[in-house]
Parts: sequence; structure tokens; C-alpha cells
Amino acid sequence: MGKVRVAGFSLSLDGYGAGLHQDLENPIGVRGLEIMRWFFETKVFQAMHGQSGGAAGVDNDFASRAFENVGAWILGRNMFGPIRGTWGDESWKGWWGDTPPYHTPVFVLTHYARAPLVMNGGTTFYFVTDGLQSALEQAREAANGKDVRIGGGVSTIRGYLRMGAIDEMHLVLSPVLLGEGEHLFGGLNLPQLGFGQVEAFPGENATHMVLKKS
Amino acid sequence: MGKVRVAGFSLSLDGYGAGLHQDLENPIGVRGLEIMRWFFETKVFQAMHGQSGGAAGVDNDFASRAFENVGAWILGRNMFGPIRGTWGDESWKGWWGDTPPYHTPVFVLTHYARAPLVMNGGTTFYFVTDGLQSALEQAREAANGKDVRIGGGVSTIRGYLRMGAIDEMHLVLSPVLLGEGEHLFGGLNLPQLGFGQVEAFPGENATHMVLKKS
Repeated sequence: MGKVRVAGFSLSLDGYGAGLHQDLENPIGVRGLEIMRWFFETKVFQAMHGQSGGAAGVDNDFASRAFENVGAWILGRNMFGPIRGTWGDESWKGWWGDTPPYHTPVFVLTHYARAPLVMNGGTTFYFVTDGLQSALEQAREAANGKDVRIGGGVSTIRGYLRMGAIDEMHLVLSPVLLGEGEHLFGGLNLPQLGFGQVEAFPGENATHMVLKKS
Repeated sequence: MGKVRVAGFSLSLDGYGAGLHQDLENPIGVRGLEIMRWFFETKVFQAMHGQSGGAAGVDNDFASRAFENVGAWILGRNMFGPIRGTWGDESWKGWWGDTPPYHTPVFVLTHYARAPLVMNGGTTFYFVTDGLQSALEQAREAANGKDVRIGGGVSTIRGYLRMGAIDEMHLVLSPVLLGEGEHLFGGLNLPQLGFGQVEAFPGENATHMVLKKS
């Protein structure tokens, strides 16, 4: 069976995985995109957007590994979009245009039912209204032996951490202070949740931390 | 006038600058010493203890710089010792033996008066009972144009951050999860307190982050 993992998830030095006040202009909250700068500069990111540029190196290697062997994704509602409440006219299809960078089934946690949304390139968004455990079971089945990647955001990761469901986390610490936002670790005791080992790898624009269960 | 700075202050990946339950065996709380491993392995630390070994490199360079141009130190009571309340028979003279690694005047914040304590090697501990502002003024005067280093611990640094008194912080992020302890950033908004720039420097055993006012 594949792993359940968090990968390429960016944090500020003060521990925030997103800023506040998400909206169309600020998909990760105000100043949230600053913590992802390491990713935007990689070849992997540029290629995802049809560009040939971008940097090779440690940051790029980790970005690449984050997408390897992933058979299904789980996203929180806010990571899928800024809409709250019902889906309205269902015109919102995610932040990523017609060809999202997932290329697998993606299970979106929501309180509001919606029919599956088939996108180009192999991505289908399934809207799961019966909770984290159900989404995980569906994602595991869809992944068919490959890994399930918990994409985020912060509250989704925290939910799966509390369930003890996450096997491995690759977090990327950016040299940025947000001051406020969604804190990944606040109130969680990671050693108590089973995480005993941390390995650090300096990248070009951020530090990569791999947390494993002991 | 010199700077007021924090230097070489170690943090766990989950943001703790000390563990819980400080006592004689655990000067930085339970598991707290793990976040300082980067320092113990340096030539600077070994030399402080009369040893010739230890590693050169980035960690060592930062350890060395942390002690440069320091004219006075400020320490919280817990960083001076595990004793609470009155000083009793005054036999406690700090964690560091007869020749502490300060070699300057050191101002110790406490609610309990005690006569200055002259140690070998140029260190004198002064016990300040009238608050952070007073300790800072005394330290600035004693530093005589050199820097004042806020040694710690966490609550002392937080107090001076809230006062807006700290010009620069060199924090050292260790790949360790403590899970609980004294959190350096919790509830503080560093950009609001004036810290706008962060530079990251990968070391051999930790990542060095230099935070400056913008």
C-alpha cells in the first residue's frame, strides 16, 4: 500500500502555511504566495505552466519528488477555491485552469455536494461531503497502491495529523515572516503524533524538512 | 551606539526555544539541549570548554559571530539557573562554573535582589529587580558602544521584542521536533514588530536565519 504523505508544503519561518483573508487575488491568503517562491523558481513549476525555464537544483529535485508516485490527492475546500457555502452556478473549477497539475483523482473536502468534475489531463475532482476518513478511504482506493498526497491547506493537514493518518511530511521552510495566518503546528504535539525523525536539506531558496514516523 | 541583538538562539522546527520542566539535569527543559546540538559540535563551543576539537564551517562561523563585539549580556532568571524564589544561601553561581563564557557584565532579570557576583574571566553578574527597561539601560551603558546581546530565554526575548528593543536576531533552526515547550513566536507578529527581512544560511547541522528590521 502506498504512503499517505504531505509533500512540498510551504511554511513561513514563523510557522504559517497560509496568510489570512483568502480571495481570488490571494489564493493562499495575503502574502501567502511569498512562502512558495522556492517552488515558482523551479523547472518543475515552469514546466507545469508550459515554460521551458526555471532552475534545476535541490529545490527542483524536491518539487519533482513531491509529484512522484502520487495516485490520488486530497484537498481542503479552500485549497480548491475561495468560494464558501454552496457551489452556486458551478462555474468555479479550481485555481488551475482547464488542465490542473494533478493528473489523478482529487478528493475535495466540502460540506456541499457537487457532481464530479472531469478536467483535462487526467484530473477529476470528486467532492466528498462525509468527512476526512471517507475521503482518505476513497483516495486510497483510487490511488491503487500508489501514494495519497494530502495537498493542504493547513486545516486539512492538521485534521489528518490528528487522525494519525499521515506517514511522512516534506515541509519547506521559507525565509519569510508572515506574522499572522494559519499555523501548521500550533497546539499539535508532533512527537506525540508519532513523528520522531527530521532530516533537513538546504535548498536554493528554502530549507527542506522531511518528517518521518519513528 | 551598539546594536541590541539576539544571536545563536536555537529553535526546534516546531518553534520551541526550550522544552518544559527545567531542572538541574535539563537546563533548557526536557530535550531542550537537542536544539543546541549544532553549537556543541563547533570549534567555538569546544574552545569555550578548553577543548581543541570541534568543527569549522558555517555553524562555527555563526557561533563565533554571535560572541563578537558584545559588550554586555542580558539573561532571564531561568537562563541563569533553575532556582525559583529567593536566592537562598547564594551558592548558585550559574550553569557555567567559575569562568562563564560571557567575559562582560551580565544583567540577570529577577524579582529577588542579590549583590553582584564577580566571576573569573571578566564576567560579573548583576541582578536587576526593576524590569526589562532598566536592565537594557544598564546593559547599554556597560556595553560602552558595543552590542548588547539578549541571551534568552524565550520569555526574555519575547519581552524585548514587544518593547521593540531588538535590532537583529540570529535564530538557528534545528531539525528537531520538541512537541511542547516555550514557543518563541506564538502570538507575536514579527512584521508588525518591524522585522521585514530574513536571510537564510544553511549550516552543517542547522539553518541560520538572520532577521533584521526593515
